[in-house]
Amino acid sequence: MSDFTQLVAQLKRRVDEELLIAAPQVEPRSLYEPIRYFLSIGGKRLRPTLLLLSARTVGGDPEAAMSAAVAIELLHNFTLVHDDIMDHDHLRRGHPTVHTRWDESVAILAGDGLIGLAYRQLLEVPPRYLGPVFRLFTEGVIEVCEGQAFDKEFEGRDDVTLPEYFRMIGKKTGRLITMATQIGAILGGGTEEEVDILRQYGDVIGVAFQVQDDLLDIVESEEVIGKTFGSDVSAGKKTYLMVKSAELPDAGHRRRMREILTAPAVTPNMLLEMQGLFRESGIFDQAQAEIERSYRRANEMLDRFPHPESTRELRDFTGMLLNRRS
Amino acid sequence: MSDFTQLVAQLKRRVDEELLIAAPQVEPRSLYEPIRYFLSIGGKRLRPTLLLLSARTVGGDPEAAMSAAVAIELLHNFTLVHDDIMDHDHLRRGHPTVHTRWDESVAILAGDGLIGLAYRQLLEVPPRYLGPVFRLFTEGVIEVCEGQAFDKEFEGRDDVTLPEYFRMIGKKTGRLITMATQIGAILGGGTEEEVDILRQYGDVIGVAFQVQDDLLDIVESEEVIGKTFGSDVSAGKKTYLMVKSAELPDAGHRRRMREILTAPAVTPNMLLEMQGLFRESGIFDQAQAEIERSYRRANEMLDRFPHPESTRELRDFTGMLLNRRS
Repeated sequence: MSDFTQLVAQLKRRVDEELLIAAPQVEPRSLYEPIRYFLSIGGKRLRPTLLLLSARTVGGDPEAAMSAAVAIELLHNFTLVHDDIMDHDHLRRGHPTVHTRWDESVAILAGDGLIGLAYRQLLEVPPRYLGPVFRLFTEGVIEVCEGQAFDKEFEGRDDVTLPEYFRMIGKKTGRLITMATQIGAILGGGTEEEVDILRQYGDVIGVAFQVQDDLLDIVESEEVIGKTFGSDVSAGKKTYLMVKSAELPDAGHRRRMREILTAPAVTPNMLLEMQGLFRESGIFDQAQAEIERSYRRANEMLDRFPHPESTRELRDFTGMLLNRRS
Repeated sequence: MSDFTQLVAQLKRRVDEELLIAAPQVEPRSLYEPIRYFLSIGGKRLRPTLLLLSARTVGGDPEAAMSAAVAIELLHNFTLVHDDIMDHDHLRRGHPTVHTRWDESVAILAGDGLIGLAYRQLLEVPPRYLGPVFRLFTEGVIEVCEGQAFDKEFEGRDDVTLPEYFRMIGKKTGRLITMATQIGAILGGGTEEEVDILRQYGDVIGVAFQVQDDLLDIVESEEVIGKTFGSDVSAGKKTYLMVKSAELPDAGHRRRMREILTAPAVTPNMLLEMQGLFRESGIFDQAQAEIERSYRRANEMLDRFPHPESTRELRDFTGMLLNRRS
């Protein structure tokens, strides 16, 4: 195992430990059991890891940023629990979603509780940073809700443009990732310039990360991604692939895709056909190129860091994301 | 109109103004329209009014506490929007609930957005108070979720004790009311002693307020309370009335009540019969006595205030609550 892989594994272990402390095993059971269940069925902990690496990059102690890292992961889990209800998804991290294992009321409340627990973690931030961190976090909560609202609105539209798509994912996915780099850099004691460069780095990898998610949804098997295969296509989500499809020169391709999307029920065979259409029409290649371009651009952001040699871990992080399969 | 009634009307007007500024008319419409709808269909604004009166009681300027008052009302509205989904309630403030007028996804997201908007308001609190106010607010968010979880758990039980009932309403209803008096007193510049006395005052009126709500649910008409008549009984809620019923000496009363509660569907006639049983068995009188006792006790708390003459407005507030019909 490389030093970086070991470091990431170690940070993840610390975050996992703290997450279960943050969600205590107390009454009411109908609130805390589903929260602890959801926190214990896995998850890559990418956002808290990124936050802790950002703190290290500016020369800070990751332990001083731990509560904020835990807060961001709790917030991320809130979005997953509520999104899964709205999107009728039954599988997450290879396990039943909260509303599937319990019911919708339990899942609504578990998500709400996760927001409260996230803010409670944030209270552990050193007082001098409380104001700015609290502000970034809160604007993040609002933007994540806005992003999810756009995502749901887009399901009912077939004229979503690429700029609209990028605005949506910037809020829904990008915001938490940018928040991770900014808060990590602030808590690590970074200068204004350092915080700003890491913010920009976060902006760019956030986009790449979501385009990758869009691709994985229809490329990888359920066993690998732990989510229902092709769930975005089935739900009529306007993913990068779908938005790009609207620009296809081949009218036959476009027509067949629309037939599949407007079918009363999307069958597994239709999903495989869709996969074939994406592949043949070059959409997969375009998405892959977009992802690689963004991750390259992210590393270029890091070149402007005052001490570029201290960005090695973040470059390794970029590489880890680039090669992820789930 | 008395001076106090005028004051309350004026504070409510200010809160209503600020609420619509706090929830901007921007995109995504599917997020902000339902939020603005819910904030504009009425509501007594009791919690923000109490917060502002608490600030005045310790000699503070209510305008300096306005953003916190708006925050607490936004938080309260979050709980209503989500609770209405969980409780399948279709009427609130005499209007369709959010999930009825739109759908469940919209209502989940509107509630989530309200939490974010509430915290954004809290950021306007003077920096020296940010830490303690932020902490009280966050512990409140968590406790409100705990209270709602207990409330839902109790629906499936018929052995809920009076102490369990009081613990549940202390979290579900009491916490926000206590938070209002505490935060108001802190932002008004109150001493530790003053904040503590107002906290205790809040604790006591919170209980009285919820027992009153339990009573109004099955006493007042839909036109008056703006909610579905008898919805607590229909949902199997363990209200003060229901918990007290379990102690009734008359086995015939108890049996008939249980028959109604376990009926596959509770008809309007059954609700009226239940109302009759509550009345005949003296449960209504017990509840009314509990309410009056609590409000009296709340005013006794205020007797211990360093300058008792400055508590006149809060005493008027107690009187206003005591006489409320909705």
